[in-house]
Amino acid sequence: MPNISCFDYSSFFQGQMRSFNKSPGTEAYEEDNIQERENNSEPSHNVTPLLPDSWKPYRGLRANVKELLVMLSRGLGSVCGMRWYGFAALGMLTAILSFLMDLSVAKLLRAHQWLYMRLEGHILLQFFCWTLYPACLCAFASSFSHNISPFSTGSGIPEVRAMLAGMEMPHYLSLTNMFAKFLGLICTLAAGSTVFLGKVGPFVHLSTMIGAYLDKLCCLIQGNQKEAGTEMLVVAAAVGVASCFGAPVSGVLFSVEVMSSHFALRHYFPCFFSAACGALTFHLFFVWSGDGETLQALFKTNFPTSLPFFPLEILLFALLGLLCGALSCCYLISHRWILKFTKTNRFFCQMLTTEKGLYSGLIVFFLASLTFPLSAGQYMASKYTTKQLLTSLLESRQWSSQSHNASVLLASLEWSSSGTPIFLSLAFFLLMKMWMLVLACTLPLPAGYFMPVFVIGAAVGRLLGEGVAYMSSGGETLWISVNPGGYALAGAAAFSGAVTHTLSPALLAVELTGQFSHAVPILLSTVLANALARSGNRPSFYDAISISKKLPYLPSLKKACHQLSSKPLRQVLGVKSVQLQITAGPAEVQAAVNSSSEAQIPVVDSHDSKLFLGYVLRSELLLFLHHCRTQSMGERLDEVCSIHQNSILVSADTTVEEAYSVLSIAGTHPLFVADGGKLVGQITWSEMQQILEGLAREI
Amino acid sequence: MPNISCFDYSSFFQGQMRSFNKSPGTEAYEEDNIQERENNSEPSHNVTPLLPDSWKPYRGLRANVKELLVMLSRGLGSVCGMRWYGFAALGMLTAILSFLMDLSVAKLLRAHQWLYMRLEGHILLQFFCWTLYPACLCAFASSFSHNISPFSTGSGIPEVRAMLAGMEMPHYLSLTNMFAKFLGLICTLAAGSTVFLGKVGPFVHLSTMIGAYLDKLCCLIQGNQKEAGTEMLVVAAAVGVASCFGAPVSGVLFSVEVMSSHFALRHYFPCFFSAACGALTFHLFFVWSGDGETLQALFKTNFPTSLPFFPLEILLFALLGLLCGALSCCYLISHRWILKFTKTNRFFCQMLTTEKGLYSGLIVFFLASLTFPLSAGQYMASKYTTKQLLTSLLESRQWSSQSHNASVLLASLEWSSSGTPIFLSLAFFLLMKMWMLVLACTLPLPAGYFMPVFVIGAAVGRLLGEGVAYMSSGGETLWISVNPGGYALAGAAAFSGAVTHTLSPALLAVELTGQFSHAVPILLSTVLANALARSGNRPSFYDAISISKKLPYLPSLKKACHQLSSKPLRQVLGVKSVQLQITAGPAEVQAAVNSSSEAQIPVVDSHDSKLFLGYVLRSELLLFLHHCRTQSMGERLDEVCSIHQNSILVSADTTVEEAYSVLSIAGTHPLFVADGGKLVGQITWSEMQQILEGLAREI
Repeated sequence: MPNISCFDYSSFFQGQMRSFNKSPGTEAYEEDNIQERENNSEPSHNVTPLLPDSWKPYRGLRANVKELLVMLSRGLGSVCGMRWYGFAALGMLTAILSFLMDLSVAKLLRAHQWLYMRLEGHILLQFFCWTLYPACLCAFASSFSHNISPFSTGSGIPEVRAMLAGMEMPHYLSLTNMFAKFLGLICTLAAGSTVFLGKVGPFVHLSTMIGAYLDKLCCLIQGNQKEAGTEMLVVAAAVGVASCFGAPVSGVLFSVEVMSSHFALRHYFPCFFSAACGALTFHLFFVWSGDGETLQALFKTNFPTSLPFFPLEILLFALLGLLCGALSCCYLISHRWILKFTKTNRFFCQMLTTEKGLYSGLIVFFLASLTFPLSAGQYMASKYTTKQLLTSLLESRQWSSQSHNASVLLASLEWSSSGTPIFLSLAFFLLMKMWMLVLACTLPLPAGYFMPVFVIGAAVGRLLGEGVAYMSSGGETLWISVNPGGYALAGAAAFSGAVTHTLSPALLAVELTGQFSHAVPILLSTVLANALARSGNRPSFYDAISISKKLPYLPSLKKACHQLSSKPLRQVLGVKSVQLQITAGPAEVQAAVNSSSEAQIPVVDSHDSKLFLGYVLRSELLLFLHHCRTQSMGERLDEVCSIHQNSILVSADTTVEEAYSVLSIAGTHPLFVADGGKLVGQITWSEMQQILEGLAREI
Repeated sequence: MPNISCFDYSSFFQGQMRSFNKSPGTEAYEEDNIQERENNSEPSHNVTPLLPDSWKPYRGLRANVKELLVMLSRGLGSVCGMRWYGFAALGMLTAILSFLMDLSVAKLLRAHQWLYMRLEGHILLQFFCWTLYPACLCAFASSFSHNISPFSTGSGIPEVRAMLAGMEMPHYLSLTNMFAKFLGLICTLAAGSTVFLGKVGPFVHLSTMIGAYLDKLCCLIQGNQKEAGTEMLVVAAAVGVASCFGAPVSGVLFSVEVMSSHFALRHYFPCFFSAACGALTFHLFFVWSGDGETLQALFKTNFPTSLPFFPLEILLFALLGLLCGALSCCYLISHRWILKFTKTNRFFCQMLTTEKGLYSGLIVFFLASLTFPLSAGQYMASKYTTKQLLTSLLESRQWSSQSHNASVLLASLEWSSSGTPIFLSLAFFLLMKMWMLVLACTLPLPAGYFMPVFVIGAAVGRLLGEGVAYMSSGGETLWISVNPGGYALAGAAAFSGAVTHTLSPALLAVELTGQFSHAVPILLSTVLANALARSGNRPSFYDAISISKKLPYLPSLKKACHQLSSKPLRQVLGVKSVQLQITAGPAEVQAAVNSSSEAQIPVVDSHDSKLFLGYVLRSELLLFLHHCRTQSMGERLDEVCSIHQNSILVSADTTVEEAYSVLSIAGTHPLFVADGGKLVGQITWSEMQQILEGLAREI
């Protein structure tokens, strides 16, 4: 994190508070004045020298207002800790950001549609309108985000994971990055279903940036210098998804699943609290903007609830789950292949390093020309936006019914606009969108990859569902009410779950549609798809990006090469650590302070035995040196500094993975490494980060 | 866990497998025969001596069948690990158990109702029927479970938590205990809404027992001796709730929230897999038994979905949450008070130790006489079973409507049977049931405390909801469609969540009713109620039981007294640990082996310096002694045994809590304690359990 020095601000705030606290005439004020007069020889930090007290007008009134403010902040603080206001603010801010983004994207999409409609009759102009609009937007998003902050491209989830695991990546949390990501993402989304990218991942990243800033703000107001650590980041990751769709429960679960290998239950309640605030704000904004009468699901469906499905259909849902699992494997393999290809192929490599904007523009132009509604686009419902695609796929009524009535026709109009059977349209849509998405994943712009996968899964489910409905409507009357929308929903959850190796999409499907009747079959499909996708310890979508970007994230590295994380520490431990003898004099201490930047420096019995005794704080060593200089006499370390013993000592045979887990729970205890009783090194988070980065390079 | 020796069985199985593998005529078979002849001098374990090969009829056929079986088990094993079949079996078995219990309880309840109806007109007989039936059942449950297995009483969740945290409590997982708990629970539930106890907690306990046995079975079949550890127990805890209500997601979340302070994500997928199997089986059994046409929620509601609530009602839901939070504090305080009272009051103390059956009978007789429908019971709908109570409280239509129509009257008949206004009935119900539940919590029988709390919360919500509906129906037409059922649902989730300090009841409310429209307000109420209940670090319901039973469960102990867990290790570390010098001879090794029962024994430089060098395995020491005896010559330890160094060394200043977390993630690494470089002790799980039990005694 960028180190805004909390200390100065907080002491400033505390000073203000102290002077707020004392209105003139009270005893405290008198005491303070006496003290000030007594301490007059030393300049006081708490008094602004430019504005002496006697000059301030409306003394009594201002004092009252100040007292009120202090009481308010105290009252707020006494109801619950300041961090709870931080969590609430985090949820609300993220939700407002999400709402604003949806609003602007909708406007940009409508502008494109309007222009395209106005050019009716001029095919060439329509073609250029169709292709150049998204191409320009994406080229702009690419070059803008690259120039403002190169860390803003991509989904952001792999980086957030690494940060939550303890790594420090300050550039990814900067305000500039947030600005670039927000604007870039609006452009990406405004490019519409041609580019077919989503907003989940970037939103998780955006909310962690907001969280990091709120965390600092809370520290400032509270005036304590110790930071809350990763708590706010964990909460922010949960809020991201929750505010993106107004789906609090699946948001929290998604962050639990994706973000860490151990979840601390003390973060559980803050996560839900913040996510609930976010979801509530998101929904309320929708109500206030006139998009709904009350708080409703984003993609509300109206499946029949009296008999949502027949018990035997459970088997078909299981089959759908397995199908989605198998498809996800194909998708993940091609995704990994293209990640490798763009790194090894010279043309792609050069384009992606030097000409990001051009590359994005060209790729998007190519994708857009394929989806042009007057050519191939008519077979894949390319006029729909991503939202419209999902809504149409989740329709409960059968498209292929022989007894068409007007309203059904209207809804599935785009899917059979050219008179092609909807089965062919769906199959063509799947075939094209799969490889187009794989290609779009290489675009260097802020973009999410969850929502497109969700829609593709819905199409898979719809295809199966329509097939079942078609088969069953032929002869018997028993299965007359088969609902293809249910299959689409289950397919969406199963496919997106399998690609990301998570189960929360099952819950997301319920929260997005507000449709609970299919919960059990959806969960079944998702579990089966996941089982297939996870078998053989394959890397997930986010793992693949982590590995490709060589991020220091252990669980992904483990999946790439299992031997790496089971290396013993002795093989990866870097340069010899600085050690002090217990009898060290000023010269040795000076040398140690110069050569080490750690906050704790280990103390050993002697340089021969290297028997570990404890550690001294760097600050105490500096005091010791100061002491020696002023008194100009040699002293011994153990006579002046206290030797702390609250440390943990592991053997050099410990594997990297085990050392990592010990480090995660070590808290304030520094971690030292001994080999056969002799101290050989120290492990801090930055040391661990170096070790992991070293391991990542070996892959 | 009772130590059924895995080793013998597994070697037996392996032997069987080996002989299955070799059909006569194949090369392997010949080889085996040759080997057997060669090894004839030694008796082979793998051949049953009573049935020589030549006597077996249908050799070829049997060999084929055996080969098929082996291939099947291999095939199953190759699709996925044997543990996955274990997880599936766990879910299904628990669901079947749950279904059987529901069936028998329903039959017993119906028998009681039938008898009561037949005695119409004979008030005295009706009174005895009403009171003695549950009293006898509970007295039987108490004395039966006490005599068969005293560990079967209560909810079981506090004990399961302690076991999941690493403590060994084998009695709680025995087969006898399962039998006693199952039968006892049926009796408790059959006592009906008079005793007003539930089945969630005991079911979690039952499923962990099933899980422990399946775990052993998997070990047997796989033939590996290392146990899967706590994985099956974690999964089983999740499956308990899932199978109890057919609610997989909230089941998993409940176990995550209640069971541990850290959740390992590697357990996440097995939990969901097993819970999905359990929920599916549970629902399918309901369908097959003819209780429903398809898989449906247990308490299916039909709230209107077009406009489930007005946006401004959100404020009322928030108010409801705060109200439930405040009520839960009252409830928890009285619960803690009665737990203390029964321990300090001489009469209760004596009754509860010597006359459990009599105590249960008396208390239940007292409770039942209060709920007798012809006296006070008529004002609290006492004729309803717990299920009927919940169903009636969740009705979407307003009870207090001036324009009654027949069907509404029918549904709320019991609540205004005596002509009392339903507001009075509800208030009286709440007032009585609260203290009656507190009293019922002292009964020494297998019983759950979640469901009654859920119903009480629903009544709180209903009261508010009816009030709002009554107020709004007076004048304006705007709020005409206020749905009191929604308030009841939110109240149920909020109150039960606040009492148990969990958020999953919000999801459970959705899963139980299949009603998603109120998800956001339900979550809001639950979060607010939780915030109020958790403030001030108060112990939850389960924490109170843990503390009262002095279970070695650290998070609860922390809530009882925060200083306890921050004690340094040096204050609680028991007797001096056994240590070996690196130069130890047979005499010292013999002494160490005799005086220590640990599997690892630490090795130090010398008894003076106590510099920790590593540890030796007890098995190697025994070999060393054997070696010395046979060769009858003195040798040194370091010449024969290998000194292992993969250990973790913490300082004696480490707090108990920190040592506990290090121990949790230490895995196979033993944990030693040093003080200023000198080894002072070793910490194992049994040592930690003693430490925690010692701390618990201090409260």
